[in-house]
Amino acid sequence: MPYPWISMTTDYGLVDPYVGICHGVIAGIAPDVKIIDITHGVPRQRIRQGAQTLARAVRYLPESVHLAVVDPGVGTDRRGVVVVTTTGLLVGPDNGLLAPAAEVLGGVVAAYELSAASYRLARVSATFHGRDIFAPAAAHLAAGVAPAEFGPQVFELVTLAAPKVTIGAGELATEVLRIDHYGNLVLAATRQDVRAADIGSQAIVRCPNSALSVRWANTFAGVSPGAGLLYVDSAGQLAIAINGGSAAEALQLNNEQENMVTITTTK
Amino acid sequence: MPYPWISMTTDYGLVDPYVGICHGVIAGIAPDVKIIDITHGVPRQRIRQGAQTLARAVRYLPESVHLAVVDPGVGTDRRGVVVVTTTGLLVGPDNGLLAPAAEVLGGVVAAYELSAASYRLARVSATFHGRDIFAPAAAHLAAGVAPAEFGPQVFELVTLAAPKVTIGAGELATEVLRIDHYGNLVLAATRQDVRAADIGSQAIVRCPNSALSVRWANTFAGVSPGAGLLYVDSAGQLAIAINGGSAAEALQLNNEQENMVTITTTK
Amino acid sequence: MPYPWISMTTDYGLVDPYVGICHGVIAGIAPDVKIIDITHGVPRQRIRQGAQTLARAVRYLPESVHLAVVDPGVGTDRRGVVVVTTTGLLVGPDNGLLAPAAEVLGGVVAAYELSAASYRLARVSATFHGRDIFAPAAAHLAAGVAPAEFGPQVFELVTLAAPKVTIGAGELATEVLRIDHYGNLVLAATRQDVRAADIGSQAIVRCPNSALSVRWANTFAGVSPGAGLLYVDSAGQLAIAINGGSAAEALQLNNEQENMVTITTTK
Repeated sequence: MPYPWISMTTDYGLVDPYVGICHGVIAGIAPDVKIIDITHGVPRQRIRQGAQTLARAVRYLPESVHLAVVDPGVGTDRRGVVVVTTTGLLVGPDNGLLAPAAEVLGGVVAAYELSAASYRLARVSATFHGRDIFAPAAAHLAAGVAPAEFGPQVFELVTLAAPKVTIGAGELATEVLRIDHYGNLVLAATRQDVRAADIGSQAIVRCPNSALSVRWANTFAGVSPGAGLLYVDSAGQLAIAINGGSAAEALQLNNEQENMVTITTTK
Repeated sequence: MPYPWISMTTDYGLVDPYVGICHGVIAGIAPDVKIIDITHGVPRQRIRQGAQTLARAVRYLPESVHLAVVDPGVGTDRRGVVVVTTTGLLVGPDNGLLAPAAEVLGGVVAAYELSAASYRLARVSATFHGRDIFAPAAAHLAAGVAPAEFGPQVFELVTLAAPKVTIGAGELATEVLRIDHYGNLVLAATRQDVRAADIGSQAIVRCPNSALSVRWANTFAGVSPGAGLLYVDSAGQLAIAINGGSAAEALQLNNEQENMVTITTTK
Repeated sequence: MPYPWISMTTDYGLVDPYVGICHGVIAGIAPDVKIIDITHGVPRQRIRQGAQTLARAVRYLPESVHLAVVDPGVGTDRRGVVVVTTTGLLVGPDNGLLAPAAEVLGGVVAAYELSAASYRLARVSATFHGRDIFAPAAAHLAAGVAPAEFGPQVFELVTLAAPKVTIGAGELATEVLRIDHYGNLVLAATRQDVRAADIGSQAIVRCPNSALSVRWANTFAGVSPGAGLLYVDSAGQLAIAINGGSAAEALQLNNEQENMVTITTTK
């Protein structure tokens, strides 16, 4: 089997049968492929967060067909695509979801539209392309069908706007890319941005309803229990946490909307 | 292996070790079988929602042993059964959970009580038959034990009362079968019922605490962002949604109780 | 393959890509191993609840490498270990998480520190040892690397303080070990403790904000719908439930903090 693994990243949640149905469709087409569920907990319809999550995970998986569906445009004329990268394939809607992962996987080699009827389910619904188009495509690709068989080449993929980061003097405003299960905030700003803004070893993080004092640290235990820290997380991204607590709770932020925070030096 | 796949549908949730324990029991009996988790998020003890979920999924899976447990009567004298259908087996409590899926799979060929001690765990608890009776049965069936080996034939299976639908003139009252992760409402009424009630292209959906204007559409994008729609969903069921929003939130409904809505034509 | 299965028990949740990343790391090292997810829903940083959950599950799994991570001390000098038991291996932080499961698996035969760089990822982060140290160790162990290859022998493992139980005359105070998905309370006190406290067939369960009448019963159906019961659960542990309801809701308890209840006889 050319690709023994398919990974899956969606906003389907685990309460409905949608994920199980996709697993079933894949099993029917490629019975020996193994599925690695990256997550089905991307916040509903949040493409950017799905893209972040996928990009963060793919480097740790064996060479795979990565199937991703966060698809507010299902049923419109947005395309479905397979993206060929240096180290694996990506399958999903062409709405920006796949681009950051493609970069992590070595860059886009080619992309093709998923239009061939022979690699879709016989009946394609208007609202569940994960089941009818994307899962079948991933399974056929894993089983060895060449990407170019799926449809015409796509020369320009949709990309997302860059996340918002504003660098000031002793101050930095940044979009929060993702809040994780522990309440840690993953930021769009980088360590370089922090240096450029001349943020010192201590700072205040502010958002509309709350604020949190943080210190630079390498590990959670680098600050006292209950204290805030600014650190580079396990994926190399700038992040904010509370040792033994939840920064998201302290700052009254959640994944339901886009969040911005301001970091002001106090050293 | 006669059945390479076992599917699982339960209300166990994923916070406790119950699902993992069932997977472990299956692995011990049928090491090569592959498990497809349809969902473990059926609302607690809600047999009808479990039945709906299972029936919706099975047609997309390869021929399997479908293990389902939503079992408020565990420890009483309700029977456990294996149901033989035209295209696969169903295993679970005989409380109506399996009947709609059996129909989707081509209808009941025969059913047998799960009474043989040799296909249960050595010690059967009063509260966890998923682990002690149903998972072992599914594993033995997948490994090739004939359904008739499990116990006496069952000639009448328990069925659920039909869901409530009342057709009026320009008005339709219908039970909500299931609310999904996106807040979409899957209805008991069918497209035929809507025609019979003479509901036009626009309508008001009412429930005890709220109301929502809807239009007929084929896809979410068929109405403006934030607007309500009445549509036929990806499983062919009548449903209510909001484009880019949650109909359940707008109507203040959740899966914790049974819900009825009234649809009144306004065209 | 010496161990065809790896089990996983963590507090990672399923919303982030952390579990999928660990699955990916394992697949890269031991492509043929099968993973049984016991749960990733251990309450965040709650070692005792993780230990309980793991100990409850392992006896039902085939002989495996059991990987468990609930790790508030990640990045400090707490050790990572592999614990050899009579019937399987345990891998995780040496913080008490593994000890109860080791006992269930027949007792500790030997333990080794996970210090060999050759069995870690090339770059070890300060905050995600599940990915960088524990998952790779589990995969190498499943593939046949001997436990002693990982580092120096550990002669004393960290253990958790015994849970709190106080036996009085007609009264018993006990820690709640775990609240499950159904709202059932699993208690630290045993049936023997109940006898020692001379609790009769009826009792009142009290906690700071509420109280519940319970009767001894063997099954949920042994009391009327909506009534409370005291019973021995499917793992042989003393537990409190409501037939068709949630004891946790009635008693206003949740898993976010440690809970104590007092049981007073009323027979």
